[in-house]
Amino acid sequence: MIHPIRSLVCLALALGASTSLQAQTPDATIARYRDVADQIIRTAQADSSAYDRLGRLVDGFGHRLSGSPSLERAIDWVLAEMTRDGLENPRTEPVMVPHWVRGNESAELISPRRAPLTMLGLGGSVGTPKAGVTAQVLVVSTFEELEARKAEAKGRIVLFDAPFTNYRETVAYRRTGPVAAAKAGAIACLIRSVTPFSIRSAHTGSTRYDSTVTRIPAAALTVEDAMMLHRMQDRGERVVVRLSIGALTLPDAPSRNVMAEIVGRERPDEVVVLGGHIDSWDVGQGAMDDGGGVVAAWEAVRLMRRLGLRPRRTVRVVGWTNEENGTRGGLAYRDARGAEVDRHVLAMESDEGTFAPVGFGFGGGPEGLAIVREVGKLLASIGADSVAEGGGEADIGPLMERGVPGLSLLVDPTRYFWYHHTQGDTLDKLDPAELARCVAAMAVMAYVVADVPEQLPRR
Amino acid sequence: MIHPIRSLVCLALALGASTSLQAQTPDATIARYRDVADQIIRTAQADSSAYDRLGRLVDGFGHRLSGSPSLERAIDWVLAEMTRDGLENPRTEPVMVPHWVRGNESAELISPRRAPLTMLGLGGSVGTPKAGVTAQVLVVSTFEELEARKAEAKGRIVLFDAPFTNYRETVAYRRTGPVAAAKAGAIACLIRSVTPFSIRSAHTGSTRYDSTVTRIPAAALTVEDAMMLHRMQDRGERVVVRLSIGALTLPDAPSRNVMAEIVGRERPDEVVVLGGHIDSWDVGQGAMDDGGGVVAAWEAVRLMRRLGLRPRRTVRVVGWTNEENGTRGGLAYRDARGAEVDRHVLAMESDEGTFAPVGFGFGGGPEGLAIVREVGKLLASIGADSVAEGGGEADIGPLMERGVPGLSLLVDPTRYFWYHHTQGDTLDKLDPAELARCVAAMAVMAYVVADVPEQLPRR
Repeated sequence: MIHPIRSLVCLALALGASTSLQAQTPDATIARYRDVADQIIRTAQADSSAYDRLGRLVDGFGHRLSGSPSLERAIDWVLAEMTRDGLENPRTEPVMVPHWVRGNESAELISPRRAPLTMLGLGGSVGTPKAGVTAQVLVVSTFEELEARKAEAKGRIVLFDAPFTNYRETVAYRRTGPVAAAKAGAIACLIRSVTPFSIRSAHTGSTRYDSTVTRIPAAALTVEDAMMLHRMQDRGERVVVRLSIGALTLPDAPSRNVMAEIVGRERPDEVVVLGGHIDSWDVGQGAMDDGGGVVAAWEAVRLMRRLGLRPRRTVRVVGWTNEENGTRGGLAYRDARGAEVDRHVLAMESDEGTFAPVGFGFGGGPEGLAIVREVGKLLASIGADSVAEGGGEADIGPLMERGVPGLSLLVDPTRYFWYHHTQGDTLDKLDPAELARCVAAMAVMAYVVADVPEQLPRR
Repeated sequence: MIHPIRSLVCLALALGASTSLQAQTPDATIARYRDVADQIIRTAQADSSAYDRLGRLVDGFGHRLSGSPSLERAIDWVLAEMTRDGLENPRTEPVMVPHWVRGNESAELISPRRAPLTMLGLGGSVGTPKAGVTAQVLVVSTFEELEARKAEAKGRIVLFDAPFTNYRETVAYRRTGPVAAAKAGAIACLIRSVTPFSIRSAHTGSTRYDSTVTRIPAAALTVEDAMMLHRMQDRGERVVVRLSIGALTLPDAPSRNVMAEIVGRERPDEVVVLGGHIDSWDVGQGAMDDGGGVVAAWEAVRLMRRLGLRPRRTVRVVGWTNEENGTRGGLAYRDARGAEVDRHVLAMESDEGTFAPVGFGFGGGPEGLAIVREVGKLLASIGADSVAEGGGEADIGPLMERGVPGLSLLVDPTRYFWYHHTQGDTLDKLDPAELARCVAAMAVMAYVVADVPEQLPRR
């Protein structure tokens, strides 16, 4: 089922434009994909296998931290299923990944009264001595407040009780809080979980050390507990906490990227790659982050195959490994490609949840943006036709650095950070109909971009 | 600051009505309380001491299960603070309460894969043997489904995976699920937590045994885990769980109701009583359930005193003990009163959270309802002027059974059951401005009903 269209670039040139394709968007040309897009959308919505498959992945294997047997078992299963789906060239590619293990961990309020605190060690944290560390807590709201109260931090546990503004801003405390606290002489670092909403839910995630200061143990408290400790300090009470973290960093472990294709009918060496990450944090089920992303991309490609669609270029679905604590999968995918990177036409990832899709974020030039916006229009019937400037996700970042245009699937963002990196990232948070629309959106975008005669301009 | 008004009943009689006061509501008469009501509302909203006080209660003492030292310490503190407030006749009255202790507990999925399950034993549950009980799980959605599959329940752990419809309906599985499961031959009972929303949050609460069948251990799983086990069963997988509950029921323990008053200036023996329950489940902080209710009622009375308001009748604030697992406080309050129960004009309780108040639910006759609706109109400026037919809470139930009209404070119900009986019932769930409006609503209602010449008709 092939839809010949005139070359977009030729069309633009014919119209006498070269720098701004937007003014001459090839409406009519891309609009010829309307029927096939509608067929993809209808079929995706009539099919509940994406949600079923995601359920079998996350219920069957649970969470999938890099280095864990459950991740490797899940990858084996994905490979077997991709083969069963009849996708072409199903395979894995080796990736060495960090191997951090949580171990037993706890936090307890010792003064002004004894009470257990709900926590999760931050990914990559060093452990404490077996008996834990016990110290008075200094609660601050910001890096600036720590700087101003530096003299009080020495020998203490510093708690950053930073209210959530947006992820990009607030996650700074998780990423660099432990280094800032160590520089001030603290013996351990706590952060308030990075979330706008909590039911005593601790949120883990990576932290980073640097080589200039001692690596101190680091954990996230719940919003509730962080606020309580802050109130206690504000009342003039002496806040003492015992923190125990049994985490270990073991030697790097073998893992794999898993992938399969529909080989292009005319230009098999040109590739549209789409996917999500198959690893997760070691809490919840990694259903939203990012089981849904992997499955949506995978189902998009399976759907093309089922509809007998073989686009001009190769479409490849990848489950990248180790996005959460290393991005080694995304790096290894690029490094294994060599010159093939230059023949990647588009890299698309879903890693912001598979809630109701609203469209895409595009990381590329204005000409590419104009084309992707035209393709986006084919998704108006499912409300996924908005294409914003700026896009990219961790696993496609290494390709984008080399000039490959990138697309992020954008979805209703309301609740993503409520569940992100918590025990509550489970299948029930997603909706089968919304997931099916994510499949449709990724399938239409990937198919059309893989099929149009001219490739998207590089970044 | 006294507002003489004509007797409502006399007014009604003068208008020639006796059965339906509603048609001749004494608008003008109750409207004379407009100024004092506005003053109460303004003062409550300008004053943040309710939230501060609630913070000192719940941060200072934590949760407050019947029989726990923290409950008794909290009661001592409330008594001391009521005395410091200058309220009259501050005192406690003895109540013997059930003494159930949770102990260590856990649940683990054994098949089809091993994974910890998040759970809370139900209040009153018996314990398991120390090694726990391990058995195949039979998941059902309803009592009817259990009845239909009774033959499969013998020797198993029955899980009621009942989706939340409304609290009254769904809580039936928590209250009577273990008895139904035991009747079917199950060795333990699990329920899905009674909530419309979860971030892997387990919800505890009382269960009931009966004398005809074995008492089997009972616990709530999270919504997430219950749904996962259900999906596994639906896929034909054999679901095996190990459940361990270390709970014990000890002999009844001494506790107390705590109370204080503003003695009425004309009819001190007639009483408007208002309050909430000072006990809580042994999770979270019991901030929403029901620290906020106790504090709102208490602050309402403190506010009257601060404004120099001494109504015609006595206004008494009570922190009832043991609402959660016995209602012994409400019973003891009534039983200790003797004939004074008949001189209780109104019993008001806040136990549905202290979110944005919308008004009251009234349990009493139509004449009383008409009067309370008039008083409600004085709360229009804070949106708390809706008075619904039907009202009552657990602690005022024993008074209402004896004919005392009852009022429930009604609030925005959106999130109450998200946090109810979980580790997430903490101070931050409440808003200082909303709590202040609850104080205002309770104060205006209590003051006017205590001050009007004629008492509310009895039920």
